[in-house]
Amino acid sequence: MKAIVALGGNALTGKDRKADIKKQFEETKNTAKSIAKMVKNGWHIAITHGNAPQIGALLLQQKTAINYFSPMPMHVLGALTQGQIGYIIQQCLLNEFKRQGIRREISTIITQVLVDENDEAFKNPTKPIGPLYSDEEARKMKEKYVMGRVEGGWRILVASPKPLSIVESNIIKKMIEENIIVIAGGGGGIPVVKKGNEIHGVDAVIDKDFASQKLANEIGAEILLILTDVEYVCLNYGKENEQLINDIGIDELEKYYKEGHFPPGSMGPKIEASINFIKNGGKEAIITSIEKAWDALEGRTGTHIHE
Amino acid sequence: MKAIVALGGNALTGKDRKADIKKQFEETKNTAKSIAKMVKNGWHIAITHGNAPQIGALLLQQKTAINYFSPMPMHVLGALTQGQIGYIIQQCLLNEFKRQGIRREISTIITQVLVDENDEAFKNPTKPIGPLYSDEEARKMKEKYVMGRVEGGWRILVASPKPLSIVESNIIKKMIEENIIVIAGGGGGIPVVKKGNEIHGVDAVIDKDFASQKLANEIGAEILLILTDVEYVCLNYGKENEQLINDIGIDELEKYYKEGHFPPGSMGPKIEASINFIKNGGKEAIITSIEKAWDALEGRTGTHIHE
Repeated sequence: MKAIVALGGNALTGKDRKADIKKQFEETKNTAKSIAKMVKNGWHIAITHGNAPQIGALLLQQKTAINYFSPMPMHVLGALTQGQIGYIIQQCLLNEFKRQGIRREISTIITQVLVDENDEAFKNPTKPIGPLYSDEEARKMKEKYVMGRVEGGWRILVASPKPLSIVESNIIKKMIEENIIVIAGGGGGIPVVKKGNEIHGVDAVIDKDFASQKLANEIGAEILLILTDVEYVCLNYGKENEQLINDIGIDELEKYYKEGHFPPGSMGPKIEASINFIKNGGKEAIITSIEKAWDALEGRTGTHIHE
Repeated sequence: MKAIVALGGNALTGKDRKADIKKQFEETKNTAKSIAKMVKNGWHIAITHGNAPQIGALLLQQKTAINYFSPMPMHVLGALTQGQIGYIIQQCLLNEFKRQGIRREISTIITQVLVDENDEAFKNPTKPIGPLYSDEEARKMKEKYVMGRVEGGWRILVASPKPLSIVESNIIKKMIEENIIVIAGGGGGIPVVKKGNEIHGVDAVIDKDFASQKLANEIGAEILLILTDVEYVCLNYGKENEQLINDIGIDELEKYYKEGHFPPGSMGPKIEASINFIKNGGKEAIITSIEKAWDALEGRTGTHIHE
């Protein structure tokens, strides 16, 4: 069976979004234990992941170094974080495999994701990223970036266009079928647009759940497993009448989504990605916590979304 | 036929070691044209490359941000540059392929390279990397790095151990045999050592020609093609009695190497890598310029090294 495992930020940095490299290795080691259970049981998987804290760190470094270097564009920073995070996951997973006597190979694939240059998102960038800037710093940054006012200062705002297709999905599919564990589509992938016959990087951030769904459908995965910090998706989350969802069809889920049960920027994209996965031929989307990944896959917990 | 194509620094940044990202894309576009000729003629290749200017840039950023961030270790910076450079090569090559109607896939593999933690090099790190540091900055850096006095201040010194094996070579071999162009072993690979059953990153820099040779032998490549800024290897280079080498056996070449014709840190490692490649079963090593890659492969120019 083929699955895409989409790792949320806390799988790599824990709750501390400013986790240093040592902490990142520690957190990823725990995540590796959870993934190893799937692999041990014969699953073919590709792992996708977010990159917000890591790209934030690079942006902050660039901010302090602005007098020495022209800042790198966002798409190149995305490539840097894919290398960094892929390496950390790949090494932690390999060590966990050795510990458990699992003989499987692991590889990180630098992944580009095609977006539409006419995507509505580019007209009005709304996603804040990176550090806070003072009024004066923001004035400088406005030469290169769209800046938005937030509490305490300014932040860079980028567009978050929808992914159209994964440039390297054919390669990723081949590798998974060769029994290799693939880490791909990190940070939602490096956003590229078509210019005539060519592709070129653009400054944007693709939602990692949307990119994971695209990849899952393109490689023909049966399962999209979205790992986050809660074991179940809930209706009326955090309220008195909160209700766990165990098992749900996409029509019912879509109704709840439209009623506003799942906030944008958190559970919303995961729900939308899950619905799209099923609509495009996927068998089941599962949303659960990192610790419960294997139990959820075995059907003992988590929110299961299907036709 | 399988070949490893080892790109020198100027293939990616030209002569300007401080090339910004735009310039890096421009230079890599030219290099892509040269590589496309090989691919068009049916060669199966993996591309390796250096990363000195790119890792230098990251170290300089880290230096300016030292009050906000604990610097990342060298092995993690290596992973970052593999993502960055791999992305640039992969995109430029894909665009060149489209232009020429070549239907081949390209992928960057984040690559770890095993070194011996008892390698002599670790006892006395001698390779200077990154920017200059003041006395005060150097004191701070000494908590994490070996610092060495140089003209005008201090620089980080790292060990340059010999590569023992390429952790991902089996994957790279499979991909090449699937007709995929693979970018791997960037910057000599991310150096890792064995600790019991596990591998862990270490602060070191592996010579990219040595790593390329290891990879070439491990995947069973017939040709190791080392691309640099000269068309031929020379005896008495730069002197009146300078003499081009067209075609040479390893015994004769070894003799010249021992006589000191090829300086360490420039032609020396390329010669040593070529000799080792042949000794370990490779058919031919070729050293030439990026522009002449195809002509050299066809036997019309370049230095050809064989049994």
